[in-house]
Amino acid sequence: MTTRPEEGLHMMPRKARPAAKPVTGWLDEAQQRAWLAYIKVQLRLVYEMNRQLQADSGMSLADWDVLTALGASESASLTVTALAAQIGWERSRLSHHAKRMASRGLVELMTAHSDRRATEVRLTAEGGAALEQAAPGHVELIKRLFFDGTPRDLLDPLSTALECVYANLLAQGSLPPPDNL
Amino acid sequence: MTTRPEEGLHMMPRKARPAAKPVTGWLDEAQQRAWLAYIKVQLRLVYEMNRQLQADSGMSLADWDVLTALGASESASLTVTALAAQIGWERSRLSHHAKRMASRGLVELMTAHSDRRATEVRLTAEGGAALEQAAPGHVELIKRLFFDGTPRDLLDPLSTALECVYANLLAQGSLPPPDNL
Repeated sequence: MTTRPEEGLHMMPRKARPAAKPVTGWLDEAQQRAWLAYIKVQLRLVYEMNRQLQADSGMSLADWDVLTALGASESASLTVTALAAQIGWERSRLSHHAKRMASRGLVELMTAHSDRRATEVRLTAEGGAALEQAAPGHVELIKRLFFDGTPRDLLDPLSTALECVYANLLAQGSLPPPDNL
Repeated sequence: MTTRPEEGLHMMPRKARPAAKPVTGWLDEAQQRAWLAYIKVQLRLVYEMNRQLQADSGMSLADWDVLTALGASESASLTVTALAAQIGWERSRLSHHAKRMASRGLVELMTAHSDRRATEVRLTAEGGAALEQAAPGHVELIKRLFFDGTPRDLLDPLSTALECVYANLLAQGSLPPPDNL
């Protein structure tokens, strides 16, 4: 696979490198290969997941992220703060999005039991039904697009590498970590 | 790392699995581990990249994707169709976004030389300067958040696995592949 024009995705191509350099230098060859592979998957996969959910279930990938995080929580509800940390969003983005989902009946917003200054997002019966309806098609897409082409013996190193990236993202990133760590 | 509540991200948790099953069944254990690791990285990394670009360069990650693809092309310009395929967007999304970028002076839209029915997106001098200004900070972020925590000997298997995923995404996905394949 050539990466010629695509080498510019998310980084500067060699020929166009600006005078100013990153403090720690540009990516080396192995890093550049890994980053290009990662970012090309990310760009297309977000598009494909969103498209499948919209077409088959009338929901966006953002709706799906919110519904699955709530569906997997103990009481099918989380505070805005905890839910935002869980799915890697800013609180303000989640507040706006949750209001739109509430107007469609997928979630309810209420004062949290634990802290009356906090807002809780709760999965409704309708939201739970939408999640159940959407899940099989979403999982089929993931299996077909993400796993069909990947040899089994690469799954463990892939998982280990991405778990290292994630641990580092939590340690060095700007968002608070999720509660369950 | 526990994945308890997060096991629901982008898939159904075991306890809440609906009656309907995916035709090919749910993810097995190795697939579930890989998918969770991948999706957790994706969710946070998109947020972090967008935040850094907004704060340090006044551009969104979407602006960056468009500018880098143009900057890496032979003539600093691509048709809407070719550019959309390059960055994994739908043509309609790119058309709208490119118009907004044109109003900020970052790109120009013009009739393509090769095909007078096609629209070409061209990097302006201002867009090129914005790309040069933003590149070092973006690459520093990638090095710090993506590579600092990942052992060198995992980079090759990570790249190989993601290249397999990408090849399969092109073969089985709904978007046209980029021109350079």
